[in-house]
Amino acid sequence: MSDMTEPRKTVDVAAAQQLFGRAIDEHDQKFGSFFLAKLFGFAMTYADERCEVTFEPHDFMFNPQGSLHGGVIATAMDVSMGHLLNHLQSRGTTLEMKTQYVRAITKGPVKAVGSLIRRGNSICFLESRLYDGEGELAAFATSTWKVLSSKPPTPR
Amino acid sequence: MSDMTEPRKTVDVAAAQQLFGRAIDEHDQKFGSFFLAKLFGFAMTYADERCEVTFEPHDFMFNPQGSLHGGVIATAMDVSMGHLLNHLQSRGTTLEMKTQYVRAITKGPVKAVGSLIRRGNSICFLESRLYDGEGELAAFATSTWKVLSSKPPTPR
Amino acid sequence: MSDMTEPRKTVDVAAAQQLFGRAIDEHDQKFGSFFLAKLFGFAMTYADERCEVTFEPHDFMFNPQGSLHGGVIATAMDVSMGHLLNHLQSRGTTLEMKTQYVRAITKGPVKAVGSLIRRGNSICFLESRLYDGEGELAAFATSTWKVLSSKPPTPR
Amino acid sequence: MSDMTEPRKTVDVAAAQQLFGRAIDEHDQKFGSFFLAKLFGFAMTYADERCEVTFEPHDFMFNPQGSLHGGVIATAMDVSMGHLLNHLQSRGTTLEMKTQYVRAITKGPVKAVGSLIRRGNSICFLESRLYDGEGELAAFATSTWKVLSSKPPTPR
Repeated sequence: MSDMTEPRKTVDVAAAQQLFGRAIDEHDQKFGSFFLAKLFGFAMTYADERCEVTFEPHDFMFNPQGSLHGGVIATAMDVSMGHLLNHLQSRGTTLEMKTQYVRAITKGPVKAVGSLIRRGNSICFLESRLYDGEGELAAFATSTWKVLSSKPPTPR
Repeated sequence: MSDMTEPRKTVDVAAAQQLFGRAIDEHDQKFGSFFLAKLFGFAMTYADERCEVTFEPHDFMFNPQGSLHGGVIATAMDVSMGHLLNHLQSRGTTLEMKTQYVRAITKGPVKAVGSLIRRGNSICFLESRLYDGEGELAAFATSTWKVLSSKPPTPR
Repeated sequence: MSDMTEPRKTVDVAAAQQLFGRAIDEHDQKFGSFFLAKLFGFAMTYADERCEVTFEPHDFMFNPQGSLHGGVIATAMDVSMGHLLNHLQSRGTTLEMKTQYVRAITKGPVKAVGSLIRRGNSICFLESRLYDGEGELAAFATSTWKVLSSKPPTPR
Repeated sequence: MSDMTEPRKTVDVAAAQQLFGRAIDEHDQKFGSFFLAKLFGFAMTYADERCEVTFEPHDFMFNPQGSLHGGVIATAMDVSMGHLLNHLQSRGTTLEMKTQYVRAITKGPVKAVGSLIRRGNSICFLESRLYDGEGELAAFATSTWKVLSSKPPTPR
């Protein structure tokens, strides 16, 4: 079949360019401001042993079915847990993470809330719950982290 | 502390811009060519009931610790499984996915190989193995998919 | 080396025999009373969209390291979720279940609390939290279930 | 409704008693012969960096739906991985394990094959594939282990 009968389905290019431009300008490869976080527009806040990652889902982050890609959802949840661990204790590395996708997301703002399941000296267990623009739970993740050497002198 | 004593750690902006530009120009929101896949430079190939997703890791996809972000790894593996399912049977939606991160990645090319664990009419189980530039296994994922209505007339 | 220098480490046989005898006498292969549940001494209660499975850990359920075997823990948590699903909606089959073991258990009573993550018509997502005798979280599980045909006429 | 119209569905008591009796007589709380393994009739063999756990499924191990209980399946797979780790390296503790149930089991012999995903000094990643009596894959598990202190003097 001919491509002429099949027009391209394109994303909101202006929105993608704005976030990409900001990522170029503002990124700094440390917690809170690394490129990928800036590109997806992640804003992190901390309170009560939780880390919230909030962002607006744009269609350049969507899957071919027209909803927020599971990879972006997993990235936000991973960030909410890794940043919390770094905030409370130390940098860590994800040994494993399981994500359940319980509801497709098309509208924001999206909020991923990372919290502790159990904290240990060498191994930490964390969870993250991600909510869509209507406040409905859209994804649930649990993960296991290996804690890396204690916080460096200039822990950023 | 002053920012002057703390120079920014920036990514290879030219590489990021090249991939972003290509994503803007070439993306089409369907399997194989959606924006996010283009942005990360994913190339999909199919053979023997497998789908391979190959890409070059650039530092704009890295975490603050200087290796490929788990979210990008999860995205590539998710794509390798979802595209395989679409190729063999039908579009599907990820019910859940668990990823084990067994080795940090700094060099490519990275290759995620999606394959079937067990295929069903309504539920499919898939796995993906992701290898780094040295051919070492770097991540292993398993997932459960709900098969969506049979392939549409113009399955792309 | 000689076995004579290495005396057998045996379990509390009387406790095992008592539970086994009760399982023989009282089991009925339906929800709430099937043999395996009786053998492990599981008692199920329901309240507020939760199912609690309570039992006393005996050393015949232990691993070679001297704590409650992960398989018994997984069984109790699986039961807490499957029984809840059956209680609220219908019989179901576990598509997958992930368990994190965050604390070794030697003393009871142990309590597994199953609850809903998200309920759907064909797919349900559940979680279970298992506490040891001190009330500390010892294991955390999430699972994905395929709902089977609606409740049979005599749903027990 | 009356229980008189609803006769009990009982298990093969003789089979249960035979295995229970053997567990009482032969168990020894170490790798290979602990009570739970004896009770389920697990036989472990090692070859080529694999551990196979073989057993016959009896209906006292079944769920209310009439197939092998997921908890017993998880136990066999957990054992196949933990025993392999102990055989190759050292005792370990399961940090987490995810099991996908891809096919109901009613006939044996059942075989769980544990193998390595990646071996490390402090963390090991393992998988297990469980096959039913027809040689079909019935369950697939992956797990993450924390390696405990090196093998004790009398490592069995």
